[in-house]
Amino acid sequence: MAKKKVGGETIRLETSSYKGVRDFYPKEMFIEKYIFDKMRRTAENFGYVEYSASILEPAELYRAKTGEEIVNEQTYTFKDRGDRDVTLRPEMTPTVARMIAAKRRELSFPLRWYSIPNLFRYEQPQRGRLREHFQLNVDMFGLTSERADIEIVSLAYQLLKNFGATDDDFEIQVSDRRLLNYFWDSIALPASKRTKVTKILDKKNKMSKEVFEAAVEAEAGKKSKKIIEAMDSGRSFMEAIKGDGSDPAGDEITRNLVSIIDGLSKLNVTNVVFTPTLVRGLDYYSGFVFEIFDKNSENSRSLFGGGRYDNLLEIFDVDPIPAVGFGAGDVTIADFLETHKLLPTFQSPTHIYLAVMDSQFDFADIVAEKIRDQGVSVAVDYTEKSIGDRIKKAATEAIPFFAVIGKAEFEQRLVKIKNLETRIEKSFQINEAGLKEITKLIIDSISIKTE
Amino acid sequence: MAKKKVGGETIRLETSSYKGVRDFYPKEMFIEKYIFDKMRRTAENFGYVEYSASILEPAELYRAKTGEEIVNEQTYTFKDRGDRDVTLRPEMTPTVARMIAAKRRELSFPLRWYSIPNLFRYEQPQRGRLREHFQLNVDMFGLTSERADIEIVSLAYQLLKNFGATDDDFEIQVSDRRLLNYFWDSIALPASKRTKVTKILDKKNKMSKEVFEAAVEAEAGKKSKKIIEAMDSGRSFMEAIKGDGSDPAGDEITRNLVSIIDGLSKLNVTNVVFTPTLVRGLDYYSGFVFEIFDKNSENSRSLFGGGRYDNLLEIFDVDPIPAVGFGAGDVTIADFLETHKLLPTFQSPTHIYLAVMDSQFDFADIVAEKIRDQGVSVAVDYTEKSIGDRIKKAATEAIPFFAVIGKAEFEQRLVKIKNLETRIEKSFQINEAGLKEITKLIIDSISIKTE
Repeated sequence: MAKKKVGGETIRLETSSYKGVRDFYPKEMFIEKYIFDKMRRTAENFGYVEYSASILEPAELYRAKTGEEIVNEQTYTFKDRGDRDVTLRPEMTPTVARMIAAKRRELSFPLRWYSIPNLFRYEQPQRGRLREHFQLNVDMFGLTSERADIEIVSLAYQLLKNFGATDDDFEIQVSDRRLLNYFWDSIALPASKRTKVTKILDKKNKMSKEVFEAAVEAEAGKKSKKIIEAMDSGRSFMEAIKGDGSDPAGDEITRNLVSIIDGLSKLNVTNVVFTPTLVRGLDYYSGFVFEIFDKNSENSRSLFGGGRYDNLLEIFDVDPIPAVGFGAGDVTIADFLETHKLLPTFQSPTHIYLAVMDSQFDFADIVAEKIRDQGVSVAVDYTEKSIGDRIKKAATEAIPFFAVIGKAEFEQRLVKIKNLETRIEKSFQINEAGLKEITKLIIDSISIKTE
Repeated sequence: MAKKKVGGETIRLETSSYKGVRDFYPKEMFIEKYIFDKMRRTAENFGYVEYSASILEPAELYRAKTGEEIVNEQTYTFKDRGDRDVTLRPEMTPTVARMIAAKRRELSFPLRWYSIPNLFRYEQPQRGRLREHFQLNVDMFGLTSERADIEIVSLAYQLLKNFGATDDDFEIQVSDRRLLNYFWDSIALPASKRTKVTKILDKKNKMSKEVFEAAVEAEAGKKSKKIIEAMDSGRSFMEAIKGDGSDPAGDEITRNLVSIIDGLSKLNVTNVVFTPTLVRGLDYYSGFVFEIFDKNSENSRSLFGGGRYDNLLEIFDVDPIPAVGFGAGDVTIADFLETHKLLPTFQSPTHIYLAVMDSQFDFADIVAEKIRDQGVSVAVDYTEKSIGDRIKKAATEAIPFFAVIGKAEFEQRLVKIKNLETRIEKSFQINEAGLKEITKLIIDSISIKTE
């Protein structure tokens, strides 16, 4: 913390960031880029294309969604200098709905779209919850087929696999929002009780068995036994609502869910568990839902999830477009990777640290330029520090190669390059053949590292 | 524009974005990613590492900079729900200064850092000026040597070259902030006149010769002839302030500037012009400055620029750290690329569009998964549209290959893949050898495209 005199008054100028947001120094940025890169590659591998939008949205966009006059208390909403109400987007779905509504006649459905927006929520910062975080949003728009649901779940599965996770590290819980309603009908639970009981079910994992059962009983009275039994076993819950063909709509929902689980299993996605209590908070889910849980015993919790929301464009009063997708946050993913020891070690984007000796600056710059032209990254050290100090700096910054240009190198038109890990040093002529050898040296070392 | 009934009242819910910001649909995002990618590659090629920070900053950070109680009228500043003043960053320099001040004891200087932040200014949107734009910020911290200035300018030069520009497309104007003061001293211009005359010089390019000369005369009276003469010729201006050794400090500044121009010329950066009128708006520049101009005759204007600002950490009341850098905006770069016909045509990140026939969904998904495992992107079309319509959709989305999986392919365990450009079609077995052939087909076609 520093002090600064302004207008005769001493104010304290903090060097810390705004509360609840992050500074990304190069080492943190490396992790963030690693996470984004895996997100991008996974989404694109499945044929998704990236879109984006500004963090600034008209506040109406969020008012409209809930149908309330007051914007959610957790948003950053303010008036701009032109007296317009502006919100820093708290989630991406209203934005993508707006973009699709605007061009729905030009766009050719189904669309496979992804984005990695930053999102803002005004809340007390805590582990895993910050005021700003980034979130991979992956959505397929315009396809009602369960093939879309299967694809979205297998993409989410593949994302974690691409981070190095194994099937044992996580569990995919699946359900369908509509199933609960059929179950309430089947046990004739009064409409007035349904919302409250559903909320209890949503929090089942956060309570002890006893507390859960007492809470259900307090709300549902005599019906509570049936509810508790059904929740304990996904299978019997399914039996309770399908089976006799008396309700074709209920059968259809069950068939749909079974078909999603089967499709995933054929793709070897088998860490899937039918979880009737799965509700997920957001209002707009209309059918299939899923949520991925970390199975680490010390840190069992939800990683991310998604589902089907077929009423996407409702707020714009245009024809609905079916959609299924998920959102996965960077903070949660990073925590997961840390827990399972899957975070990569920092690697500099710089390949060669080139130390100039004997004031051979001009020659060093020319050599650096020639090496850079081959696509190899070179940082030139123009200081007059000792070679030992400079090697130390290169090592601290995790730069794999160290080179020297001095009087001898200038006279012989060559550059000495040392692999800081193997300690092997070699001289290269500054000509076409020599430059090609340098490039090969670097490429070989990088491909070994990434294998 | 759509209408929505909320609370009995009909409101109109716009599908357009907030004024002055952009929606990036996949095709615009492709251009934006292309620009960011070139920025990243160029900066990393010179040994720079990426950092980042939140767009939210304490408003004090900007008040401190100008020493005024009122934050600049063009910023987005508001109170959060905890009554803290927050600003959406209008530029990155105060943020990076804050980050460096916070960790200056741990960081090992010199630092080569870059970032591509989005920046916000509340102003009337117009061509090339939006309320939100992205800006590549490249800075070297901790080196006073002119080698740092040379490197920064040659990196800026290389950035434009990497976008495909030629030396004739742009011009690099250079000067030193301190030179003007020496010139004012040499012609004994009263201190009271200097700021106003400097402002006129800064706008020289935006006026006719007559208007410029009249403006200088109105301010500088008898001294105006000397000023106009000196400005007309960089060389005579240099002569006016160096030369006789009577002022070693003035000589040193001149020598420094000449040495930067010489160093650039040795690296074949020769489209450099000494421009004594170059001032650049920002307060914090303390020495060498440069600005790059588009030489297109119909659109001659500043693209971007930078310079040396050695008082960076002043606002935190800690020891100063010398710095040199520049900021290049995405909107200006995109306009430049458009003017010079250097924008790339859209290419999908998806390699293969796979159409499912005869309800062979499970087999198609398995084949897609096997191909994806090779790093090849596959979008599966689960619709029941005609093959013609599906080929059309693949072509619209600029996906280079089209594949079919139907009953015949399932029975023979193969996939037919067609190059939509050459119209050449080939069948591949779904086994290890066949998958390798598919990967080769895709890689070969991509490397041809990018060559």
